[in-house]
This record gives sequence, structure tokens and C-alpha cells, in this order.
Amino acid sequence: MSDRLFIFDTTLRDGEQVPGCQLNTVEKIQVAKQLEILGVDVIEAGFPISSPGDFNSVIEISKAVTWPTICALTRAVQKDIDVAADALREAKHKRIHTGIGTSDPHIKYKFNSNREEIIERAVAAVKYAKRYVEDVEFYAEDAGRTENEYLARVVEAVVKAGATVVNIPDTTGYCLPQEYGEKIKYLMEHVDGLSAGKAILSTHCHNDLGMATANTMAGVLNGARQVEVTINGIGERAGNTSLEEVAMILKCHKGIGIDTNINTQKIYPTSRMVSSLMNMPVQPNKAIVGRNAFAHSSGIHQDGVLKNVQTYEIMNPKDVGIDDNAIVLTARSGRAALKHRLSVLGVEMDGERLDATYQEFLKLADKKKEVNDDDVLMLAGADRAAAHAVKLDYLQVTTGMGVKSVACIGLDIAGEKFEASASGNGPVDAAIKALKNIIKRQMVLKEFTIQAISKGSDDVGKVHMQVEYDGHVYYGFGANTDIVTASVEAYIDCINKFKK
Amino acid sequence: MSDRLFIFDTTLRDGEQVPGCQLNTVEKIQVAKQLEILGVDVIEAGFPISSPGDFNSVIEISKAVTWPTICALTRAVQKDIDVAADALREAKHKRIHTGIGTSDPHIKYKFNSNREEIIERAVAAVKYAKRYVEDVEFYAEDAGRTENEYLARVVEAVVKAGATVVNIPDTTGYCLPQEYGEKIKYLMEHVDGLSAGKAILSTHCHNDLGMATANTMAGVLNGARQVEVTINGIGERAGNTSLEEVAMILKCHKGIGIDTNINTQKIYPTSRMVSSLMNMPVQPNKAIVGRNAFAHSSGIHQDGVLKNVQTYEIMNPKDVGIDDNAIVLTARSGRAALKHRLSVLGVEMDGERLDATYQEFLKLADKKKEVNDDDVLMLAGADRAAAHAVKLDYLQVTTGMGVKSVACIGLDIAGEKFEASASGNGPVDAAIKALKNIIKRQMVLKEFTIQAISKGSDDVGKVHMQVEYDGHVYYGFGANTDIVTASVEAYIDCINKFKK
Repeated sequence: MSDRLFIFDTTLRDGEQVPGCQLNTVEKIQVAKQLEILGVDVIEAGFPISSPGDFNSVIEISKAVTWPTICALTRAVQKDIDVAADALREAKHKRIHTGIGTSDPHIKYKFNSNREEIIERAVAAVKYAKRYVEDVEFYAEDAGRTENEYLARVVEAVVKAGATVVNIPDTTGYCLPQEYGEKIKYLMEHVDGLSAGKAILSTHCHNDLGMATANTMAGVLNGARQVEVTINGIGERAGNTSLEEVAMILKCHKGIGIDTNINTQKIYPTSRMVSSLMNMPVQPNKAIVGRNAFAHSSGIHQDGVLKNVQTYEIMNPKDVGIDDNAIVLTARSGRAALKHRLSVLGVEMDGERLDATYQEFLKLADKKKEVNDDDVLMLAGADRAAAHAVKLDYLQVTTGMGVKSVACIGLDIAGEKFEASASGNGPVDAAIKALKNIIKRQMVLKEFTIQAISKGSDDVGKVHMQVEYDGHVYYGFGANTDIVTASVEAYIDCINKFKK
Repeated sequence: MSDRLFIFDTTLRDGEQVPGCQLNTVEKIQVAKQLEILGVDVIEAGFPISSPGDFNSVIEISKAVTWPTICALTRAVQKDIDVAADALREAKHKRIHTGIGTSDPHIKYKFNSNREEIIERAVAAVKYAKRYVEDVEFYAEDAGRTENEYLARVVEAVVKAGATVVNIPDTTGYCLPQEYGEKIKYLMEHVDGLSAGKAILSTHCHNDLGMATANTMAGVLNGARQVEVTINGIGERAGNTSLEEVAMILKCHKGIGIDTNINTQKIYPTSRMVSSLMNMPVQPNKAIVGRNAFAHSSGIHQDGVLKNVQTYEIMNPKDVGIDDNAIVLTARSGRAALKHRLSVLGVEMDGERLDATYQEFLKLADKKKEVNDDDVLMLAGADRAAAHAVKLDYLQVTTGMGVKSVACIGLDIAGEKFEASASGNGPVDAAIKALKNIIKRQMVLKEFTIQAISKGSDDVGKVHMQVEYDGHVYYGFGANTDIVTASVEAYIDCINKFKK
């Protein structure tokens, strides 16, 4: 039988304290409800004493969700614990998470204290929290740099005082996996309360050296049965361990024999929600949830993927809630990839004709970098574009500060000309509203990402969009020195992909 | 004495084949020269047979750099090797990187072959490459899923055939660190040519499950002496191992006793160059090189950082070439952080006055999320802003497709009103040129990132900018429903930080 690993999500606490990521209470409730759907066991909802906003959020999240345990953070201070207990009053399942620094730098510089006094304060905090709740988690801050022998004494003492979970954070993200795994192993072997099953150990790793996930897994393999994680790995500095990475490792490596309650098909929607609400971009090459995570582009690989998915794929994108496994055609794409794409587009080609088309394709790809479906059809002499495509004829937008944004757009739809205008609260908003005055379909803009990274203001901006129409989500792309035009191009790119 | 680890950078090959990341030859040369400054040992410059552009790039990179070995990729095919050798003709130090898939799915589905035949093809390829160059690297594609015993036979055979380096790629990113480490250990123990020092093993790990760096380190700790990495961890799907993470792990963990030739202070500039040229954003929480990697914001942490940097910092941002360790004030910031920031801004405050200001600060932070220097000074009753600030009075921009972008801007500089206009090749370009017609300083826009991630076209866009002036680089931020206005606000934010 598989062991059960508890997932403790701290997106709303350790994640939310990142500069620029702060959410209001309504947004926090939205995330908490999604985390419940995702199947997390514990939601760390905030640090109630830190601000009135945090206090209220813990109350509202407690009301909003049913199954996950709601956890509130405190220092090892009575006032913190009083306030946390108050904030948790509405929670159906509640936990107080209290703790103190245990490494020498923390004891010496932060608390100006000594090892024995720290243990006394830790025990006192746990006992005090126990007056309010049955479920008390203790964190030994900077455990990663705390000597194992002393750490075991701290853990033994807090478990005896009633802690149900003991969190061993690698606060500075310094540990190597072997080191962190050995720490967990040492504690499992040297703390009586753990072997007796009175409490479980929890990992809490940071990604400063890029090893949060590996450290977390080392902890789990050595006996930890809770992991503290965030969606997209957000968190202070280089962030926390990514929930999605741990969940998918355990799903892919069944041999480990450890299960979670995560419904992995909810991973991608949760990732998008958190990224969008926190305005925190996920880099395209982020494991599991990045835009490219399941995209194959090299010629060698494409050939392999087409011959047998198993050759290059260890996960099915559907398992994490992603619809499609896009192969993008570039100068690296092989003949097999081109043939496959043509076939998907309804053009069957082989032999010399394919060879000739492939040569043309390579030349275009060298110039154009990404070759889209219309380009492919053009190369094949079957210009789908002409048949039904929407084309941007002209666009004029006025915007600024102290003026209302207004746009006039001209479209060419299968040879017929249309023009419309609209105002909006920004230039893109105005332009898209004008476009919708011409194309009156039930289209919903699901996501809109502008990436203009450049050395000057006159460089090309790239826009990625997702538009929902008739139950399907379509992806569009635009690139232009004018980011407003690029945005409209991306929207039109989506429309041109609609299955009519 | 420390062992030497060779850094094999494949940003220009495995990184460059990512959709949207393709570089032209001039850009590739720029990156290659920067990699030389960074101190990499080997630059994988391309896959010459794959396209004419790649072929030319290998030639031009060979001419442009002096010290690093230039490496060209091939399949285990004579024609590939002929073309690679030709492309490498100008290189001062050259290597051919040839190989073939060795896992059962590869042998069966991709090559429709058997194990013995694969070894023959591998040996033939290495011997053929040896006719052209002394330094031949062999890759056993999908080694991560290749049975160890067979893999050892392959490695033994290619080393005997003359391979100087054998690359053990975890092509699908499936391995766990312990598994990958054991694979390297097995090979070190079972291949005679390796113990005899005739060849070294190389790691090549992918990040599909978030463990590329940990797998690479497991390889190094078990005897691999070359690592294949990319800047910012770019690469297909979830990317490759990050150069910066491996370099900093070895720098922080001196006890491992392994050194590289990397000049870590060049890491950050290299990261920015690659991100910018490839138009591949680095997420703020990316280890080492993300915007937040060295930013501390929680109250508990800030207090610790201020008391003693060692409490929370394992690396000095200066070691990777970053100027400053920004503490961002948010609702989580403690009193100590506020006091410190006020002191930096020239306002000394303590006791009751600090308590009162802190209460006001918390209320503002709950509303405003990020509290900037001007807000802090306003709270302290010392409004620096009034003294010399540039304020945006109004802005009007017309842009689109088929029209020239034109902007009119109105600024208030210390109470005096100014207006100017300009045209540009996009709305932001026009607006900034108009602004520069008023503020005639030698300002250079170094970087410009727009992050508009939203569910609708009417959501707020955020803009981050870096402007260089008088030898310093200033960071600015703007947020507005109009991305053009947000961009101008960010530029003005930079200007208001200039040390006059």
C-alpha cells in the first residue's frame, strides 16, 4: 500500500508576501477555493498579526472552504497566537503554525539568546497554541543550517509539548539534497516521538540554488510526510518548492510508493489563475506549467515524437490539464514534422514534392524563426488564408493620460472591407472592442500576455493570447514594434483558427 | 586540491532551438563573446547539417572567440560529421559532438534497430569524427532511460574508439537525482577507459520534473567532470540545467572541492543579454538571476537581514554581478525595515513617532501592496517628491497600423509646465522621444519589460524599466490600464531616482 503525503500549500502566505504579489481578500478566496478543488490538504492562509488585511483574509478563507485544514502563521509569541486563534475561529479544520529560529546565526543575531532558552520558548509556544487548537505545527526556522543533534532535541521537545507536525525549513535555500535528506533521516531515527507516530515531519524548501524540489523529494524519501509548497514555485527571493513538480514526480515515479490527494488535471488551471491574479509571469521553460513545457521543436526530437510519443514524453499534457501537445515548426524541424503538420492541415505530401517543399521551408524558417500554419500552407501551394481569413487592413488608436482611449479598425474579411470604432480604458481594450463591433461573436479573452523585453523602446513586442469561443480555447500570437498592433494581430490570429 | 569541472554551454544549440528563441548570426556572435568573458570551457555553437543558418553561425562563432572549444552537433551519420567538420574549420579549439539513442524506446521506435547494431554505429561515428578532430564527444541519447549494463558497454566501446568525452543525457528529464547519480557512479566503476582517465563523463539534464540542477550535481558528485548547461536554463520544453545554478552551488559549497573557470560576476549581465536577445523572460522567482532572487520582503526576514546579513543570505548579490540587495516594503515589512528605509532616505525616527508612522504604513501597505520611497517619505511628513520630482501631467498618443505613432506629452517639473511632441515607430517609442525633447539628458534605456497578464484587455499592465544615466543604472516601475502610460510612468520613475 502506498504511503500518503500531505500537501501543505503556502501560496497565500509565503507566496503572497512576494513584492508585487499581494492579493486582496476576494482574490485570496478565489485562490483558496481553487486549491480545495486541486485537492491540497492544508492551506496556509496568512500571518494574522502582520496586518489587518491578513487577519481578515484568514477569517474569510476559513468561511469559504470546507475540506482543507486552514493554517495561520505566528511567531513563538503569545500575542501572535491569540490573534491567529481568533482569525481561525470560523475554520472547520484549523491549525496554528508557530515557531522560532534554531540555527546559531538566528539564535545569536536575531534573538540575542542561547540554545536552552530557545527550546523553552519553543515548548511554551506549542503549549500555548494547544490551548486553542488540537493541530499545532512547529517550525524550526533555518533548520537547514541548524546542527542535527540540537535540532533533534528541539523536535523531541516540541513533539512532547503536543506538536502534531514539525516543519524543517531550509530557510536560506542552502542545502544540497543529500544533506537535507540526511537531516530528515537523522531526525526520524533520533526523535522518539516521530517513530512512535505522534507527529510527522514537514519539508519547507527554498529555491535559491535551484534545488527546492530535489531537497523536498530527498526529505520525502527519508520519511517526511508533509511538504510545504506553492503554485508555480512562487515565494520570497527564488521562491518555494513548486507544488506541481512534487505532484508530478510522485505521479511519474509510481515506484516510490507515495500518493497525494492532488487532482493533477487541475494543476494547469490553478497555475494560470495564480499567475494571473498575482501578475507573476511563469517563464516559458518552467517545469510542468511553462508555455513550452510540453512543446517539442528540434528536428531529431520531432521525428521521435511522431514515431512514438513514448520516445520523448514522460508525461501526458492532459494529466496536468493542458489540452494539446504543440509541435512548433522552426529551422530545427525535420521533414517528418513538416509532413505531419501538412497532414493535420489536410495536405498529404510525400517523396520529391515533400523534399522540395522542405527545402523552401528551411529557407523560410531561417528567416522567420517560427513557421505558422498559414506559412506551411503557402509553401504547399494551398493558401488557406485567402479562403476565410480575417486580415488587419489598418488601425488607428489614440490613448494616453487625461484622454479616453479610442480606436478605429479596418478589417478585410474574405475580400470584403469593414470598419468600426470604439473607446476603452486602454489602447488594446479600445482596439479589441472596435474589432468586436465588426466580428460579433461570443468571444472571451481568457489570457493576454505581452512580452516586450528589449534594449530600447523601438524594439519588437510579442503578444500571446487565448480566446475562448464555442467551447474551445484558441491560442494567438502577434509581433510588432507597436504593442497595440501586436495585440490586435494576436486576437485576429485566434479568430483565424476558429473551427467554423 | 580542488578538482576542475568543465562547463559546456549549449545555450546556442539546445537553448536556441526553443520556439521563438532563434537568433541571427550577429546575435549568436554577441552571446558567444559574452560566454567567453563568462569563462565557459566549451561553446556548443550549433547543429550544422540542420540548416544553412546554423552552418554559417558555427563558422562565424569559430572566428569570433579564442579560448573556448567550439563544438558542433551531429547525428551518428557521416554526412552530418562531414558538414560539422567543415563548419568548424576556423575554430582554434574544436570538438565534434556525435551520438545516437541508446534506450530501448529509441532503438526500437526511432531506429528500428537492435543493441549490437547501435554500438557498431556509435563506434563508426566516433572513428569517423576522429579523422577530422582530436576532441570527439559522444552522446548516448536518452541515457537516463538506458539500462546501466548496456550503457556501460556503449561507453566502453566509444571510449576505445577515441571519444574524449561521453555525454550521459537524461533526455526526457525523468531521472531522480539518486538514480542519475547511481548511473554515473556505475559507469565510473564499470568502464575501464574512464578509470584510466582516457575520457571524462558529461551530464546533460533536462528540467521536466524540476530536477535538472539536482541531477547534474548528483552526476558531478559521482564523478562526472563536464556539465552541459544553458544560461537561464533555457532549452526545449522545461529547459536544460541552468549554468548559473551549478556555478553558484559550487561557489557556495566550497566543501565539495570542485572548481569551475566561471567568473560569477559576469553571470547577471550574461543572463540579461540572453533573455533580451532571445526575448525569453526570466521569471522573477528564478534562482540566482530572477528579479526577486535577492529581494527580501517578509517582516520576519527583513528584521533578520537588517540585524545580520548572514542570517538570511547565503550569497552576496555582488558575486553574480547584481548591484544592490533591494528590500521591498510591503504589508509584511516589520518596523525595523521601515526604520532602515527611512534612515537610508535621510529621516531618523524612533520610539512613539516610529510606532505611529508604522501604523500608518501598515494601512497604506494593505491598500497599496508595494510602498515606494515617496510613499515612505510622505508618511514621515517629509515629502521629497515636491522638491524636484518630474510629474506626468498629460499624455496623448496616436498609433496603429498604417499610421505613424505620434505622442504629445505634458510634464510638471518642480511646478513648472512643459510640453513636447515626437513621432516614433511605436507608441512607447514616440512618447519617450517626446519626453526626451523636454528632459535633455544622456539617458539610455537599458531594459524594458512589459508584463500584462490578465483575463481581459482592460486589466492593469505593469512595466519595469532600467535607465542608465551618468554611469548608474536606475530601476523604474509603472502600472496603468493603459500600457503606454504605464511605460512613460516607469521612465519618469527612473528619472526621479537620479542622483542629481
